[in-house]
Amino acid sequence: MFRNFKVVSHVVFGRGCFSQLDEILAPRRGADRSCVAFLVDDVFKSQGLEARLPLLGDDLLLWVNVDDEPKTRYVDALRDDILARTVMGGPGRLPDGVIGIGGGGTLDLAKAVSLMLTNPGGSADYQGWDLIRHPAVYHVGVPTLSGTGAEVSRTTVLTGPERKLGINSDYTVFDQVVLDPELIETAPAEQRFYTGMDCYIHCVESLNGTYLNEFSKAYGVQSLALCREVFLNPRRPESEDKLMMASYFGGMSIAYSQVGVCHALSYGLSYVLGLHHGIGNSIVFDYLEEFYPEGVREFRVMLDKNEVTLPRDLVAGMRREDMEKMIDVALFLVPLWENALGPDWKKVMTRERIRDLYERM
Amino acid sequence: MFRNFKVVSHVVFGRGCFSQLDEILAPRRGADRSCVAFLVDDVFKSQGLEARLPLLGDDLLLWVNVDDEPKTRYVDALRDDILARTVMGGPGRLPDGVIGIGGGGTLDLAKAVSLMLTNPGGSADYQGWDLIRHPAVYHVGVPTLSGTGAEVSRTTVLTGPERKLGINSDYTVFDQVVLDPELIETAPAEQRFYTGMDCYIHCVESLNGTYLNEFSKAYGVQSLALCREVFLNPRRPESEDKLMMASYFGGMSIAYSQVGVCHALSYGLSYVLGLHHGIGNSIVFDYLEEFYPEGVREFRVMLDKNEVTLPRDLVAGMRREDMEKMIDVALFLVPLWENALGPDWKKVMTRERIRDLYERM
Repeated sequence: MFRNFKVVSHVVFGRGCFSQLDEILAPRRGADRSCVAFLVDDVFKSQGLEARLPLLGDDLLLWVNVDDEPKTRYVDALRDDILARTVMGGPGRLPDGVIGIGGGGTLDLAKAVSLMLTNPGGSADYQGWDLIRHPAVYHVGVPTLSGTGAEVSRTTVLTGPERKLGINSDYTVFDQVVLDPELIETAPAEQRFYTGMDCYIHCVESLNGTYLNEFSKAYGVQSLALCREVFLNPRRPESEDKLMMASYFGGMSIAYSQVGVCHALSYGLSYVLGLHHGIGNSIVFDYLEEFYPEGVREFRVMLDKNEVTLPRDLVAGMRREDMEKMIDVALFLVPLWENALGPDWKKVMTRERIRDLYERM
Repeated sequence: MFRNFKVVSHVVFGRGCFSQLDEILAPRRGADRSCVAFLVDDVFKSQGLEARLPLLGDDLLLWVNVDDEPKTRYVDALRDDILARTVMGGPGRLPDGVIGIGGGGTLDLAKAVSLMLTNPGGSADYQGWDLIRHPAVYHVGVPTLSGTGAEVSRTTVLTGPERKLGINSDYTVFDQVVLDPELIETAPAEQRFYTGMDCYIHCVESLNGTYLNEFSKAYGVQSLALCREVFLNPRRPESEDKLMMASYFGGMSIAYSQVGVCHALSYGLSYVLGLHHGIGNSIVFDYLEEFYPEGVREFRVMLDKNEVTLPRDLVAGMRREDMEKMIDVALFLVPLWENALGPDWKKVMTRERIRDLYERM
């Protein structure tokens, strides 16, 4: 059985293509008093981007904050807010679209909100694989940071009361992505680097994993090549175009592959320490030479060339229960371990070994 | 303005995944007496594939012949045949799906038939760009030859009363493709080579074209790399998986690029001589060293390694009106020339120069 991979069905790519969003949304807009909900990273408040949003009539602009990684209760609150504000459209009236504009966190919020507008209950109920029952509201992703692959993935990674885990579903996939390299040009250098490393690391994990086939390999190999062009060379005019494609291809490569040891450990670290995904992965990856020797060596060259210094000693002095929770979160991610280490991964990756790895960080 | 690229929204890839077609079609099947129309290349008649077709109830099996390149009148006849045979489902009842199983010609027939089931008139009326007004019937592509990119493209290339030209439309794109490398393993060696060269050549044309951006480049570079792995090396177990991905990526690379000189001339040659697309491209490409020097040199190495000898002297002694028709067909393909030679292509590529190129073939 091979996954029937759901692909984002409309992609526009090009410098300045964000200006086409208005026209892209036009045929999706319903009758009077309908609305589109724009979820925009609040770092763009009072910046040039705000004036370029194609807001019409009753459209909603929700500034979202992703200083912390997206939480399930935040998703539910945003959903409730949208439903409260769109009730004027008539009982049961849903928005015609949800547009996420921001980095991976904002895109994940937009995906999760679009799902929770049509699926009953709380978003924590759907953390896992294929638990969603109803198609989402039409949803569009506009990345302003590249590397997570959130623009193409079938997951939305949320921190819930129990664990950090995605809502993995075909319905999670965006209906449209707008890939405008100009939008990622102003990202802060460290954030750009760490987010790019998310892509680099997941390519290394997927290309070295046991799940790989030629579909995922074709995407992964090219994504890795683009990451190298971007992060081993001085920045050039076309660097952001390449970085945006690296992220898109990195996301596509997950079709028939999985991430591995780094992502599993990084999920645990982020859950307890509240670290962002990109920096969490980078911190963990530096300790994984035994699993990914070439990848880790090249990663260190990238750190060096991009003048980035990793934070150290984050785990020293951690409370015992936090450490155990971190290990629990990491061990829960069975497909990641199985991809990295094969079906007998439990013999290789014990609680003790994970604890030992964490204690070095 | 950038094209909002329509992508095939469901892709399944893997050895043996053809067996999942039944399950993929299940949710698309409507109420009683509905049917799915299978258009299958008649080279598979009485072969193992026939027994594996997931035919149910009133499903139609139409063996199609693509000894000649698909004609508009053949499309219209197939459409009429389907409508005549499905009338028992009730007036105006359309099939729930059209499934094309074969090489690029068969896939193009399936795409065209699915469009003509919902769009009035004859298929020749829609040869051109974005002339289709109504969405097609749900349609699935199952390639048994790789290289044309027909599985992902927004065109269906047809020979009409006036010219050889595609029906280019977002509605042309398949809703689903089933990429099973086992299905291409038994293709005759020459046909496999010429069809693969279609992919190789269109990558060379798109990577050397003026339309290219980083989206198309990312796909084109990887497609070319896969073509090299397949055609510069002895055949290996994973060769057909790679060839299938080369074709998929080659098709995707056309998003923001175009083919060039070779395809334009080859359309003319095929129109008049009835040559198949793959062999037509190969014959033409060998004379295009002045436009694609590295590509043509590498192509000749591939010819050599795969022990293929190109037919020669096809144009010698051709009637004058046939030659003029060939030039007309080639010159009509404005986007191809513009991509290859820039906006001033008419100054570079005159009727005389095309005639001179053709006369050498």
